[in-house]
Amino acid sequence: MTRFVDVHDMVRWIGRFGHEAIMSGMVEYLESDFKRWQSFEKSPRVASHTPFGVIELMPTSDADTYAFKYVNGHPSNPARGFQTVTAFGVLADVQNGYPVFLAEMTVLTALRTAATSAMVAKQLARPESTTMALIGTGSQSEFQSIAIRSATGINKLRIWDTDPDAMAKCERNLEPLNFEIYKASSAADAAAGADIVTTCTADKTNAQVLHKDAIRPGMHLNAIGGDCPGKTELDPDILDEATVFVEYTPQTRIEGEIQNKPADFAVTEFWQVLTGKAPGRTSETQVTIFDSVGFAIEDFSALRYLRDSVDGTEFFEEIDLVAHPDDPKDLFGFVGAYSPVGG
Amino acid sequence: MTRFVDVHDMVRWIGRFGHEAIMSGMVEYLESDFKRWQSFEKSPRVASHTPFGVIELMPTSDADTYAFKYVNGHPSNPARGFQTVTAFGVLADVQNGYPVFLAEMTVLTALRTAATSAMVAKQLARPESTTMALIGTGSQSEFQSIAIRSATGINKLRIWDTDPDAMAKCERNLEPLNFEIYKASSAADAAAGADIVTTCTADKTNAQVLHKDAIRPGMHLNAIGGDCPGKTELDPDILDEATVFVEYTPQTRIEGEIQNKPADFAVTEFWQVLTGKAPGRTSETQVTIFDSVGFAIEDFSALRYLRDSVDGTEFFEEIDLVAHPDDPKDLFGFVGAYSPVGG
Repeated sequence: MTRFVDVHDMVRWIGRFGHEAIMSGMVEYLESDFKRWQSFEKSPRVASHTPFGVIELMPTSDADTYAFKYVNGHPSNPARGFQTVTAFGVLADVQNGYPVFLAEMTVLTALRTAATSAMVAKQLARPESTTMALIGTGSQSEFQSIAIRSATGINKLRIWDTDPDAMAKCERNLEPLNFEIYKASSAADAAAGADIVTTCTADKTNAQVLHKDAIRPGMHLNAIGGDCPGKTELDPDILDEATVFVEYTPQTRIEGEIQNKPADFAVTEFWQVLTGKAPGRTSETQVTIFDSVGFAIEDFSALRYLRDSVDGTEFFEEIDLVAHPDDPKDLFGFVGAYSPVGG
Repeated sequence: MTRFVDVHDMVRWIGRFGHEAIMSGMVEYLESDFKRWQSFEKSPRVASHTPFGVIELMPTSDADTYAFKYVNGHPSNPARGFQTVTAFGVLADVQNGYPVFLAEMTVLTALRTAATSAMVAKQLARPESTTMALIGTGSQSEFQSIAIRSATGINKLRIWDTDPDAMAKCERNLEPLNFEIYKASSAADAAAGADIVTTCTADKTNAQVLHKDAIRPGMHLNAIGGDCPGKTELDPDILDEATVFVEYTPQTRIEGEIQNKPADFAVTEFWQVLTGKAPGRTSETQVTIFDSVGFAIEDFSALRYLRDSVDGTEFFEEIDLVAHPDDPKDLFGFVGAYSPVGG
């Protein structure tokens, strides 16, 4: 049988363990998987683009476990009452190819994207950082805030969104969690005085939600909303005076902020920082950018964490996804045993 | 909610409607989709190869519906009590990216592979064909026999497998269905006198289960077991004196029998035959080969047929795969509404 964590299980799991504990646990799994980056089979995700949006499959594998995520991105969905991003994912056993774990990943992707930002901010932000900014207060915003606070202790939050309702929603959700929140009047206002600036907007355009003059020495930028060809968030000039860190270079060249730069624009893969193969932040005035597009290994880590965490709990059910005939060569007999064959 | 057809639903569905009716219905869906071949987004499947086997994702899409299948192929599985191939698949709505239908496809793949063979045999085999041969009597064999009979009326069956137990199993399953079965002493013996020869073996090697001297003028070969790089079934010389039909040329050059031939080896895509853009069989003595590797559009057709066929029946359940917050931008609030957020 295949274990299945549905939406209801997922929210009960979060309720039981709490966002911050889950983010911390997930960061540990992410770090452990990023440190063994070279043991994974990696490929750019497989994307199906339409005028409405994109549907992607994101596979990766180590020697024991195969994982993939199905995820869509449809920027016009919220206006029609749907979410921009929904997802689900699967873990399979490499040795026999059987799918062993299925989970909703709409919520889990929000957690893993935030946990990834937190893992990176912990390494690249200035240790004395006290304030973070959020440009874009959609579905990701609260998760990002909690994850970064969990990793860095930062409690001061400056938020901005073109949609006042989205800002009010973010404030309403985060205020009870003891964030000190400032509602900014523009993206530049939000960024002013922030040590860590997260851009998480959803427009499917080459937007510039943050201009070069909003950048201050020593900032760490966490650019997560630019994640498709033709979908970026930053004034490209910002990249020229910063050090850019990515997940998986071939994918980020297609989908990240650096799609607006020449193919030889210098980047550092973050796993190299974690393993000491490349420097992270090297000065107090350096601007660091995590040009994040989301990579399959992060989903692998998140699914692995979820699988381990729900083991022994009631937060999953077993589903009958794989036929298991007594004689593996007798699939036909297996079908017939349940149902007399007729013409 | 997402509709889910599990293994139990699948076997009850087959029991209700019967293999032959289902194969016929599926052939209609396949033909309708092959005829509009050019309206699909097509790409070679994404394969993860290990020493144990392969795990593949097979996506395709038309303007309305996206489909993908997860499928493994592990030749050493049966010796360990597992099936060589297991699969599941998903249909999604292109307009909003939401997954709307999930189904087991271990059984459904067997049905769709057989229905595809039947669709092709109906076009390419000589109309006066009376006898078919099966080289390899594993999981696919009974489905192939029933599908081809359903499409051509052929009832005489010559079978061969290196595993006597697999032959006995095939005979045991098919005899009650009124096939006239001859158990051959070799692959060549099985092919002798057959008008349609189906090879469906599972070795992960460049095997030659059928040699050139077993081929007779006018034969139609249905080569379905060669479906991975380094996994072929036919003596390559057979191809030189035959007309070769494929599903999707770029994928078949990598995975089909023609991987043993130069990259410019002439082939015809089968959809062209169906639409009249290319000739099928042009003489009574011509040898035709369907170098089948399985293509995503076939899974699209099979899933679409299943979805339509189970609609209004009890052969599916609804699962909670996609979170649906009242405010699509408030995923965090959705989680919190079910579970007080804690540290």
